Amino acid sequence: MDRSHSIITLTSDFGNREGYVGAMKGIMLAINPSLTFIDISHEVHAYDVMAAAFILQQSLKYFPPNTIHLVVVDPGVGTDRQAVALRHKDHYFVGPDNGLFTLLLETEIPEEIVALKTCKDCTLSDTFHGRDIFAPAAAKLASGVPLEELGAPIKRLMPLHWALPIDDNEGIRGWVVYIDHFGNCITNISRELFEKRSGGRKTTGYAGSGIIRGFHRTYSDVPIGETLMLFGSSNLLEVATNQGDAATLLHIQRGTPVNIVFSNPED
Amino acid sequence: MDRSHSIITLTSDFGNREGYVGAMKGIMLAINPSLTFIDISHEVHAYDVMAAAFILQQSLKYFPPNTIHLVVVDPGVGTDRQAVALRHKDHYFVGPDNGLFTLLLETEIPEEIVALKTCKDCTLSDTFHGRDIFAPAAAKLASGVPLEELGAPIKRLMPLHWALPIDDNEGIRGWVVYIDHFGNCITNISRELFEKRSGGRKTTGYAGSGIIRGFHRTYSDVPIGETLMLFGSSNLLEVATNQGDAATLLHIQRGTPVNIVFSNPED
Amino acid sequence: MDRSHSIITLTSDFGNREGYVGAMKGIMLAINPSLTFIDISHEVHAYDVMAAAFILQQSLKYFPPNTIHLVVVDPGVGTDRQAVALRHKDHYFVGPDNGLFTLLLETEIPEEIVALKTCKDCTLSDTFHGRDIFAPAAAKLASGVPLEELGAPIKRLMPLHWALPIDDNEGIRGWVVYIDHFGNCITNISRELFEKRSGGRKTTGYAGSGIIRGFHRTYSDVPIGETLMLFGSSNLLEVATNQGDAATLLHIQRGTPVNIVFSNPED
Repeated sequence: MDRSHSIITLTSDFGNREGYVGAMKGIMLAINPSLTFIDISHEVHAYDVMAAAFILQQSLKYFPPNTIHLVVVDPGVGTDRQAVALRHKDHYFVGPDNGLFTLLLETEIPEEIVALKTCKDCTLSDTFHGRDIFAPAAAKLASGVPLEELGAPIKRLMPLHWALPIDDNEGIRGWVVYIDHFGNCITNISRELFEKRSGGRKTTGYAGSGIIRGFHRTYSDVPIGETLMLFGSSNLLEVATNQGDAATLLHIQRGTPVNIVFSNPED
Repeated sequence: MDRSHSIITLTSDFGNREGYVGAMKGIMLAINPSLTFIDISHEVHAYDVMAAAFILQQSLKYFPPNTIHLVVVDPGVGTDRQAVALRHKDHYFVGPDNGLFTLLLETEIPEEIVALKTCKDCTLSDTFHGRDIFAPAAAKLASGVPLEELGAPIKRLMPLHWALPIDDNEGIRGWVVYIDHFGNCITNISRELFEKRSGGRKTTGYAGSGIIRGFHRTYSDVPIGETLMLFGSSNLLEVATNQGDAATLLHIQRGTPVNIVFSNPED
Repeated sequence: MDRSHSIITLTSDFGNREGYVGAMKGIMLAINPSLTFIDISHEVHAYDVMAAAFILQQSLKYFPPNTIHLVVVDPGVGTDRQAVALRHKDHYFVGPDNGLFTLLLETEIPEEIVALKTCKDCTLSDTFHGRDIFAPAAAKLASGVPLEELGAPIKRLMPLHWALPIDDNEGIRGWVVYIDHFGNCITNISRELFEKRSGGRKTTGYAGSGIIRGFHRTYSDVPIGETLMLFGSSNLLEVATNQGDAATLLHIQRGTPVNIVFSNPED
């Protein structure tokens, strides 16, 4: 493993105003001053494990092998939830075992998991394990310490599952799983499922207060201000408005159902 | 060209919450793990090509030679607008050709422009060329690939122009082109134009609901809470309130006219 | 001093939207392209010297020796307030002398202070000394220029003091000094003072519209939505709500008094 450019990504709900992220980076630089940090997001909605998993999934696969992903959205800090580090498909992950990592890996079993030992030289607070446990573990991994030295192997992660869309002959019923800051409403309906079910039939989408007819390839295939359905950059069905905010316009929130109805051309 | 510390700046309207910026950085690190990223802003107002150009102009000239500026504010993604890379005065630029770069360079002609080829090994989405086209091109430039290998040379960029202030014997009529987060209202009236027209006469400014008399050198030349006119750090006329928010106080928005009237001391 | 991984932290009230932070980093990279930047916060409340000191204190001590801390919250820019650089306990600090550094160091006397000379090759604006004075000084320090070459030694910093809590036999009267983005209300009552005064007696806290009984170790020691008192990661007394926003719930703002009353078990 080439450690000369060790990359650590950071995802948390700590915000960018307070010094919490700075404390984690300071601790890691004191262990290894040549680390490269990439902030994925520190604006994950507070305590929102699902949003953290969704956000990190958008960029995870683009990072080079041996990247270390430090994820701290930790509503159970100070309880008996485990602190873990794991390896999966040449990437490493460090954070609380609260379901976040099973969501992130979509129930694939990681190749190696350890329950982190408490760092001997650290003061352990009851409220900020990002600083006191997770960050030191990530920096050690990035400096060549093998996973098995960070803790005892365990077999399973806490399970947590994405709600899957329901599909039958009438169509597909899914949900909005994320609304981005443009107001694009991203659903749990994949391009793969859609294409299997549609069979080339006419498509109508029902989402919030909107009825959307037909699919498009990109936002600007419709006039400015018009709403459309398309497959976004993560190959999930999106309800969007060209240069507008579909969520506000159609009263859509996370969890809003999205129904896709197929009809034959002669209907 | 010394590639040992390749610097890439990033400017976009992607926000800091979602994983879009992370995906671009991941792709670039997979091409070259020793890049240095400097985020200029990911909070450019959505689809706002003029704001992106204005924001990047505030820092552009301070970066060392060979810096690469990746700019992705791209309302026309997936249409036939071109993807370009260009060289100008020892800096490189990569992004969509939607007028952004002519604004940025203030109609100076870049020394070299290429229309980017689609990256062969990339999957191309219709909605996220920042990840699929622009970021890989920036990382290749930073790794020593010459501009001409990234695409075919073209001669012109899409034109887009800043609205210039009008000046005559009565004074100068300009506009607010940007409001920063302090509420300082930055106009398109340059120090150079002002000094040419003023000829040492008394000066009164009209902006929103405010009438402002006289110029000052810096914010704290007036009492806290008082409004003033001054030349800000980019040598553009600013309407500001000492330790307050001039935009809110005087009902000024981007586009609000600012009239500067000169009068002789004896008037 | 090993300069191969020179770390500069940045704290300001410039926000993350505009190009002000980018300009400072560009200038520093032009002086030394191998610097490592760690953004502590650019979302310090505008002009708020106390918030800047509080935020940087949360992470300061975790950084390795020879880290340089560039702090620009500078309501007095362009006046005769001094520009300083200083060394204290193996860390370096650069910024305006407006009380920020005495707050930060809690009235400890730095080992060395210099009043910065104006950079000879820089254009000096009257409104942005972060770019024109402080950033160049930080980059030079990080490149091995000794402190004494940056300016003439001075003896004292402008004093500014944290308001201390009042304690007597009835209890402790402190204040909320910071509210973080979770809504946790951090007071100026330290664990040390609390333990000295409490003597194992029953404890009741009065803060805003809330009466809080007893202490807990961590947020999730109480049910979701319930309010508690605890010592947070900086060993200061916090009023917090488990997975909720205590500041909104109890109408607490910065400066709100927090009274701690002790009573004997038999009362």
